[in-house]
Amino acid sequence: MDRDKILLTPGPLTTTLRTKLAMLRDWGSWDSDFNAVTARVRKSLLAIINGQDSHVVVPLQGSGTFSVEAAVATIVPREGHVLVLDNGAYCKRAARLTNLMGRRCTVVDFGDHEQVSPAVLDEKLKADPSITHVIVIHCETGAGVLNPLQALADVCAAHGKGLIVDAMSSFAAIEIDARKLKFDALIAASGKCLEGVPGMGFVFIRKAILDGCAGQSQSLAMDLHDQYTYMEKTGQWRFTPPTHVVVALAEAIAQFEAEGGQPARLARYTANYRALIDGMGRLGFMPFLDPSIQAPIIVTFHAPGDARYEFKAFYNAARAHGFILYPGKLTQVETFRVGCIGAIGPDEINQAVHAVELALQDLGIASGEPAIQGD
Amino acid sequence: MDRDKILLTPGPLTTTLRTKLAMLRDWGSWDSDFNAVTARVRKSLLAIINGQDSHVVVPLQGSGTFSVEAAVATIVPREGHVLVLDNGAYCKRAARLTNLMGRRCTVVDFGDHEQVSPAVLDEKLKADPSITHVIVIHCETGAGVLNPLQALADVCAAHGKGLIVDAMSSFAAIEIDARKLKFDALIAASGKCLEGVPGMGFVFIRKAILDGCAGQSQSLAMDLHDQYTYMEKTGQWRFTPPTHVVVALAEAIAQFEAEGGQPARLARYTANYRALIDGMGRLGFMPFLDPSIQAPIIVTFHAPGDARYEFKAFYNAARAHGFILYPGKLTQVETFRVGCIGAIGPDEINQAVHAVELALQDLGIASGEPAIQGD
Repeated sequence: MDRDKILLTPGPLTTTLRTKLAMLRDWGSWDSDFNAVTARVRKSLLAIINGQDSHVVVPLQGSGTFSVEAAVATIVPREGHVLVLDNGAYCKRAARLTNLMGRRCTVVDFGDHEQVSPAVLDEKLKADPSITHVIVIHCETGAGVLNPLQALADVCAAHGKGLIVDAMSSFAAIEIDARKLKFDALIAASGKCLEGVPGMGFVFIRKAILDGCAGQSQSLAMDLHDQYTYMEKTGQWRFTPPTHVVVALAEAIAQFEAEGGQPARLARYTANYRALIDGMGRLGFMPFLDPSIQAPIIVTFHAPGDARYEFKAFYNAARAHGFILYPGKLTQVETFRVGCIGAIGPDEINQAVHAVELALQDLGIASGEPAIQGD
Repeated sequence: MDRDKILLTPGPLTTTLRTKLAMLRDWGSWDSDFNAVTARVRKSLLAIINGQDSHVVVPLQGSGTFSVEAAVATIVPREGHVLVLDNGAYCKRAARLTNLMGRRCTVVDFGDHEQVSPAVLDEKLKADPSITHVIVIHCETGAGVLNPLQALADVCAAHGKGLIVDAMSSFAAIEIDARKLKFDALIAASGKCLEGVPGMGFVFIRKAILDGCAGQSQSLAMDLHDQYTYMEKTGQWRFTPPTHVVVALAEAIAQFEAEGGQPARLARYTANYRALIDGMGRLGFMPFLDPSIQAPIIVTFHAPGDARYEFKAFYNAARAHGFILYPGKLTQVETFRVGCIGAIGPDEINQAVHAVELALQDLGIASGEPAIQGD
């Protein structure tokens, strides 16, 4: 009767009870016990990307977007010039925050149903030598596209440009190996594929550029160099940390490691994704993206063509059957999204598909088939 | 054996089990159930200051300092000039973040053992008409001074200057009535006297200035006008909220209201403060501040004069007896701090004093008496 609904959203997502139980204690933010938790989390995060030799990791209070903004403010000099490879809403947000803080920013638009292109990046960098940094989103949660990160990083490296990767919804699920992939900064957050609760982000920064970042941020709260320096000196966060969020993340990471790390998480999410695509396909739903560029993280489906469909009613009906879906974020096409991530497996996904089937019935909709097939 | 230690720190602090238990569920950040929690929290916060008619409240992800920075970035125009009334470390931090973001900033130094002065404020505002805004900290946690907020606000109002109040460690414990006190922005956070967990702040903004704040922030994440506008339109936070922190705050506020609101909280903290001063006095400890300017929030004590005293060892000894103290934040005098706030009463304070007595014994220190009496 009062069971928690399953969140099929890209974070906050469903976490394990064990992760939430970690929040039943209060911690002094100055205390050695808590400092040890922070140190353990940072060590584990670096290990996930094999970044111990090449990078440091700096946690930051706030949502993932705070960490993206902090990364740009800290890494990009005030006279820098950022190129944003735009294939979705989160890219546009990165461009907006870059512009707002007064860094020069150029956007190249790829459309939200396509990967960004390493060849186009190469052209742009050749054409405009004033570009100093490139921002790319690994998995664009707007539609769910997986971008070709290694090829993009290789182009940046060839041109000697800094690369800032928003890996918010891919980190810990899709392989990122700092020994193979050259980047200046990579950002993710507690409440995504690590399956912690939301409230903090973290940024990996390349050691070689760290010293040069001193004094670049015009925001005190978002100065990752200052946060890093203080943390190295004291073991503490500069400003009050979200203690309960941090200990929940530590507990979530312990479960991540016990499950088998990134390969095991990818395998589970891929199984979730397959169960979702298969089940929704049986109901007539059509995914928005070509499967070849789809990350097994969050799937955008075309809205059913039936005139009785209206997202809010559909959402509420699925919710009444125990599952929280996610609205679409595309402006041109009517869609909705379903996350494959969180502390759930194919069983929950099959139940979710069943809930969607019941929701369609509740609304008197015969099929999930969209109005217009194909692109 | 494994009981939680009591936190005598100015936040994070000891919260009730009921508050922490609220974090045992996951919430969709887009869902109506969660939006209702956000709306309830905002309504309760406004009621605490009787601000329904005059102000709005905007919650923000991150620590309290994030909200202070956001308030300055949102409220002060880029060509504005801020006067910081400085009587402690948190004032200096406010000045630093104001300078960093490129707003002109003047600091007037009062020393950390004194209140800031309304008469001096009046002089400064007369002498420099270019000043547009004044920043004052209601209770300066650095030493624990309670500043004369009403008199300061009256001076600002008389000069037609904007007032930004950092009420981080006073809000909900010391009376703030928006019907009597004129301010443009007032900032507090979840993990202080409301006894929630840390992870979010909130800023009250005067309705009359709200529209003029559009586009003033050069930070996207910290643009409170944008956060407000989006929240009014959708009921949601712009970027992922710290869902578990928000529901814990809602639960903490329900207990705050049931206890009798601000007057009851002040009465409990005052009883804690008296028990602390009395007990520590019996051990020979001397408070740093004159009692007439001391807030019953956090008390700075002179370190014992005994040569065997060393803060870290003293801290560890008290900790071994179950209590977490707080280091001093003064640069000129050796001190430590003890918080009176959190879900604790005089019983816990008496136990804490006993733990301090045992800690002194452990270190072979006969008395808490400082080296030099008096100022």
